[in-house]
Amino acid sequence: MSTAAFLNDFHHVATIGATTNNGVDRQAATADDARTRDWFANVVSHAGWDLHVDGIGNMFGLLEWTPGAPFIMIGSHLDSQPLGGRFDGAYGVIAAVHAARTIDAEVAESGAIPRFNLAVVNWFNEEGGRFAPSVMGSSVFAGLFDREQMLDVTDLQGISVREALAGIGYLGTDTGPAVAGYAEIHIEQGRILERESITIGLVDSSWYTQKLDIEVLGEQSHTGATAMADRHDALVAASKIILMVHDVTDDFAEEALVSSVGQLTLEPNSPIVVARRVHLVADLRSADPEIVKAARETLLRNIDALARTHDILVNVTDFDIRPIRRFPEAGIDLAARVADSIGLSSRRIQTMAGHDSVAMNTMVPSIMLFIPSVDGISHCEREFSTEADMVSGLEMLTAVARELVVGALTPMTGTATVITAGEPAVEALAAAGGSAIGGAS
Amino acid sequence: MSTAAFLNDFHHVATIGATTNNGVDRQAATADDARTRDWFANVVSHAGWDLHVDGIGNMFGLLEWTPGAPFIMIGSHLDSQPLGGRFDGAYGVIAAVHAARTIDAEVAESGAIPRFNLAVVNWFNEEGGRFAPSVMGSSVFAGLFDREQMLDVTDLQGISVREALAGIGYLGTDTGPAVAGYAEIHIEQGRILERESITIGLVDSSWYTQKLDIEVLGEQSHTGATAMADRHDALVAASKIILMVHDVTDDFAEEALVSSVGQLTLEPNSPIVVARRVHLVADLRSADPEIVKAARETLLRNIDALARTHDILVNVTDFDIRPIRRFPEAGIDLAARVADSIGLSSRRIQTMAGHDSVAMNTMVPSIMLFIPSVDGISHCEREFSTEADMVSGLEMLTAVARELVVGALTPMTGTATVITAGEPAVEALAAAGGSAIGGAS
Repeated sequence: MSTAAFLNDFHHVATIGATTNNGVDRQAATADDARTRDWFANVVSHAGWDLHVDGIGNMFGLLEWTPGAPFIMIGSHLDSQPLGGRFDGAYGVIAAVHAARTIDAEVAESGAIPRFNLAVVNWFNEEGGRFAPSVMGSSVFAGLFDREQMLDVTDLQGISVREALAGIGYLGTDTGPAVAGYAEIHIEQGRILERESITIGLVDSSWYTQKLDIEVLGEQSHTGATAMADRHDALVAASKIILMVHDVTDDFAEEALVSSVGQLTLEPNSPIVVARRVHLVADLRSADPEIVKAARETLLRNIDALARTHDILVNVTDFDIRPIRRFPEAGIDLAARVADSIGLSSRRIQTMAGHDSVAMNTMVPSIMLFIPSVDGISHCEREFSTEADMVSGLEMLTAVARELVVGALTPMTGTATVITAGEPAVEALAAAGGSAIGGAS
Repeated sequence: MSTAAFLNDFHHVATIGATTNNGVDRQAATADDARTRDWFANVVSHAGWDLHVDGIGNMFGLLEWTPGAPFIMIGSHLDSQPLGGRFDGAYGVIAAVHAARTIDAEVAESGAIPRFNLAVVNWFNEEGGRFAPSVMGSSVFAGLFDREQMLDVTDLQGISVREALAGIGYLGTDTGPAVAGYAEIHIEQGRILERESITIGLVDSSWYTQKLDIEVLGEQSHTGATAMADRHDALVAASKIILMVHDVTDDFAEEALVSSVGQLTLEPNSPIVVARRVHLVADLRSADPEIVKAARETLLRNIDALARTHDILVNVTDFDIRPIRRFPEAGIDLAARVADSIGLSSRRIQTMAGHDSVAMNTMVPSIMLFIPSVDGISHCEREFSTEADMVSGLEMLTAVARELVVGALTPMTGTATVITAGEPAVEALAAAGGSAIGGAS
């Protein structure tokens, strides 16, 4: 493999939607997202692979060595947060492209056709900054979210996913490949690997997460002429709720729970009008579902008391609840052996952040890999990983994909683990007694 | 005068931009603001008066009985807050139109030409909900704000006043009339008149007000993957500032100070990103400038301590400082005598809210009148005043305007008090030793 070509592609993609402080701003289905998509389409076409785009904007580059055989899929996402970093997502897509090139060349040279075909993927809207919920494209592909419902989601300007994708020419009509396994590499977005000087994280599970949609309904009035005692100020009440969401983490051991309010809209948002409505989204995450549930109970109780004190209505709705997802032990073991064999240090790790691999893992056996993040910083222009770690990660992903295409994680008996996009994967897994994961472990 | 025609016009205008809960939404230079402007233009033209529109969108209907003589001006504003009430501003414009009709008919019938001509006015953007600062059109007319600077002000979507006014066809080229006096009637937006069962408020002064522009600069990071201790959350810090702005009123006697945050924007405003920047506007008002200054000092001290604790940067800028403005005693006395003569109860009152009359009073002797507000509610769909009070107020405004056009508030000696729009009024007043007001008292 050509390390130089890989780094060259990485630094080129980082120029698309580049910000002044070394970050990128490529929110889903914007003009800059379209430019990275054009780059991806161009790379796929130059490599001689087929490009498919599905009905939620996911892009697949298909290396179909055996017509009709299922695919091992590798990739991540090219969209970013507003003023996000260059690494989050883009690193995984570009590494996948170069891993696929290497394996494609090896297949051509050796003439030995692997059991599975290989696909590289750029998932739509992993970030969810413009269109909520996040991890949208892969969740639709895995049958976790309804496609039509997601196409109707709108951004804060009222533009729907459907309109935005059609507008940039990436609302496709392909269905995506039948898939037998998935692997992804990503920056850690935490400090553990850096602190322990370990190169590869082997993700064994994702944190339990949930969001609370909170609507605070006060009464609009004149900021100058309304007596303080006569006000029902939605923003004052909302500010107390934001602090409750922050402070509830103190009820638990340090870092056992993370919480935040990242989205808030205010109506009417006029400097001389007391706010009538504040809409905000709280995000709660923990490795222990009971901690999230206890924090939620505390918040509901305190918000109820606040609403009474302020004579204000507060509507709280649970949404986007994501249970702990465990990656298959066989995949973790396989990745650990691969890391050893190429001389890279590794350890098991959890992910606090959501990832496309978490959605894909509900559908097919999946392997999630991390490389270190400097200072654990992400979703930020300061996000950084070293070129040495990026190159090690590329070697790791390449070696893992090489194992997957020959069937190292897939039992030879039957095709029960091969699932076509759009099937209700969770139900399919349940009906199969969890065989997609259990059968492989 | 025809009470029925007046009420009919009032209820008709309330249908323009009507909301489901009996309010109106006619923010400055929107399509619905344009429709009330068309209504005003049509009424002026049907009455046979000249319509002038100036370079900041103020509309004047001119009753020029004596070519070249200065004008007494009466009116208010037809724009509203988002989901505002039907009465705020619109009542004063419609009352002015009907007062002018009555006086026009009297002049025609008697053949006695008054000393001054009469103008009805619909000021641009009194509310300031879309374009800050408020009281924009009359302040430009009075020479308090620079016209070009105001035309460059943008709304939250980045549309400038210039573009918005041109877009609805109301960026005029007239200069507006030379003016010798001003009168306005408005709803009180407080509870004093209602509580004391008094029909007319004689405004003697405006409250001291100032705004603080507050920018909170944290660091953007991932809500899931960033440890609580590593965050610099701009929204958590901003929430504490909002509560400080609210709680600082407790340092003073009840209702001696009102304060609020009505405008706030959050960046990047993504549900899974810790906020990097919050921009908010705090509004402080009191009858006593020393109270506002003391509250501001407390806030600056507490915000500074907060910024250190959170390791966050907070920029605070004073703006829109409006000193106490006193209305001329001669005008208050005149209005009190007029109320007595037509059998209406009256009392002196202060205004906590800003008004076009406060700006006009820096330019020419002005009279500001209030009618009662039910429950003191305003900037809200629930805003209400009775038809009986509205009709009494129309009688009052008509009688006051009748006195003003014959020169009851303007000394016969010289024309020092007649000021043409665009002159730097404050300096002119200062240079004249405050003669515009002092000379009349």
